[in-house]
Amino acid sequence: MARGGLARLLATLILFLLLAAGPSLAESEADLARGASEAAPDAQQHLLPRPLVIELPSARAGAELDADADADAVVTVDVRCASWRLAAEANNLAPWAAVPPECAPHVRDYVTGSAYRSDLDLVARESAAYARAAAPAGAADGRDAWVFDVDETLLSNLPYYAEHGYGAELFDHHKFDEWVERGEAAAIPSSLKLYNEVRGLGFKTFLLTGRSEAHRGVTVENLNKQGFHDWEKLILRAAGDREKTATVYKSEKRDEMEQEGYRILGNSGDQWSDLLGSSMSARSFKLPNPMYYIP
Amino acid sequence: MARGGLARLLATLILFLLLAAGPSLAESEADLARGASEAAPDAQQHLLPRPLVIELPSARAGAELDADADADAVVTVDVRCASWRLAAEANNLAPWAAVPPECAPHVRDYVTGSAYRSDLDLVARESAAYARAAAPAGAADGRDAWVFDVDETLLSNLPYYAEHGYGAELFDHHKFDEWVERGEAAAIPSSLKLYNEVRGLGFKTFLLTGRSEAHRGVTVENLNKQGFHDWEKLILRAAGDREKTATVYKSEKRDEMEQEGYRILGNSGDQWSDLLGSSMSARSFKLPNPMYYIP
Repeated sequence: MARGGLARLLATLILFLLLAAGPSLAESEADLARGASEAAPDAQQHLLPRPLVIELPSARAGAELDADADADAVVTVDVRCASWRLAAEANNLAPWAAVPPECAPHVRDYVTGSAYRSDLDLVARESAAYARAAAPAGAADGRDAWVFDVDETLLSNLPYYAEHGYGAELFDHHKFDEWVERGEAAAIPSSLKLYNEVRGLGFKTFLLTGRSEAHRGVTVENLNKQGFHDWEKLILRAAGDREKTATVYKSEKRDEMEQEGYRILGNSGDQWSDLLGSSMSARSFKLPNPMYYIP
Repeated sequence: MARGGLARLLATLILFLLLAAGPSLAESEADLARGASEAAPDAQQHLLPRPLVIELPSARAGAELDADADADAVVTVDVRCASWRLAAEANNLAPWAAVPPECAPHVRDYVTGSAYRSDLDLVARESAAYARAAAPAGAADGRDAWVFDVDETLLSNLPYYAEHGYGAELFDHHKFDEWVERGEAAAIPSSLKLYNEVRGLGFKTFLLTGRSEAHRGVTVENLNKQGFHDWEKLILRAAGDREKTATVYKSEKRDEMEQEGYRILGNSGDQWSDLLGSSMSARSFKLPNPMYYIP
C-alpha cells in the first residue's frame, strides 16, 4: 500500500485550495440537514424493473412520512448522525469546523457511552496484534519506530469538550490552551496499554503532537502523571510550524525521522492528518474522534 | 469491488500464512469475543488518581457482571460488532476472510436496514459536493477522470450475500460467478445519481473492477440495464492480472491512466484496495461494506 508521499501531500494542498473556492462545509451540513432521501427521485428515472427478491432498503421514505412522530424523527436523526460519524471516521467528509447542530446529542451520547470506549479498545487491540507481528526481531538495530499523536490518542480531553458542547461549539484556542495548562488530561486506558506493549516489543516511540512548544513542560508532566514514559522524542510545534496544516507539519517531522534512519512501522492518531501525507507509516490506525477535525 | 478470482484466493491464502506466524486474525476474533474489558486491569496499574469530574466510560464493567441477562448481552454484542464494523470502514482491521460469527446478525441487520442506505447516501452527497468543486472548468481538456469500482459501489450484490450469510460464509468464487452471470445486480441508487452527476460535470468515468474479462459481456449488460452508460473505459481483470492483489492491479491501471494524461480527481470504492496504492486519486471515497474484505 505505497501511498505516494510528496505527490499526495501536494494533491492534498491543491484540494484545500480547490475546496476553499467551492461549496464544501456549509453545503455539506445543509445536505445533512436535508436528509438522505433526495437521491431517490432522480435515480428512479434510470431504473428499469428489477427482478429481485431483495431490494436495497429505502431508508427515508417512511421516515419522511412520519416526520411529525417524535419517536420516528429521533430514530431518523440518529441514523443520519451515525452516517455522519461513520463518514468522518472513513475520511469521506469535506473539512468541517464543528459537529452539525442536529448531531450534537448523538456525538455527546457516543463519547460518553459505551460505544466510544469499545471502539477505542478494538483499535488498540488491532494495533497490538499488528505490533506483535511487526515487532523488531532479535537482531534489532533500534530503528523501528511507532508514532503516537497525543490529544484524543494518548490523552483524553473529554472533560474540556464536555464543557464546550462535545464539538458542537467552534474551537476556542484560548480556552483550550487554558485547559491544556491544567495538565489534567486523562490517559485513554487502551492507548496506555498499547503504548507500553509497543515499547516492550522494542519499538522506539515518538510522540508527535500539534500542541506548541510553549506547552512542553505541562505536556511532559501530564503524560508522566498518566503513566506514559520513556519516549524517544516528544515533538511539539515550533514557532515556524504554526502556519502549517497538521498534515504538512507531521509529514515533515516523519520525513526527518526517516532521514535519521528510523523505520516508521506504526502510527496511531485520531485525525487523518496524523496519518496521511509523506513518510507514511507501514500501517496506520485511526482512533475514533467525532468531536473535531484538524486539516 | 474487484473480485479477482484466483488472485484473490491466492492473496487470501498468503495472508493467512503470514498471519499464522503472528497472532492477528484468529486472535483478533478471539479478542472480539472476549470483549473490550481486558485493557482495564493493566492500564489501571499506571493510573494515578485523576481529579476529573468526567471519566472515560467503562464500557464493559457492567455488561460483564450482567452477562447472564439476555438483554444486556445483546446490547454488548451489538456495541462490539458496531466497533468491528467501524474499524473495518476506517481500515483498522487486519485482513479478514469472513464476518466474525458473533457479528453475523449485526451485519445482516445493518445492510438490510436503514443505516446502510443512509451511509451510502451521505458518501454520495459528499462525493457530489467535491465533484462540483473540483469539476473541469470551461476550458476543460477532457482529461479529468473519476474512477468507480463496480461491485458494492455501482452495483449491489446484496441478493447474493443474503443467500450466503451476509459475509459470514467464506467467499465461494464459483457460486459468486454464477450470480454475476445472471446479470441481475441492482444499481445502488445514490451511486447511480452520483455517476450521472459526475458525467454531467464533464468528468470522464472509468469503471475499474476486479471482475474478470470473462464477465465483460454480462457486466456491460447489467450496468446498462441499471442505468449506467457512456463510460470512458470499463477495465476488467485480464488473465495476467489474476495473481495480483486488487491494490496492485488497480494501482497499475491507475498508473496507466495517468501515463495517458488523465488526472484522477475522484475515486469511489467499497474496499480500501480500490483506493490505496499508487496514482491515488486527489480524493477518495470509501463506500461502506461490512460483508467482505479484498486485499
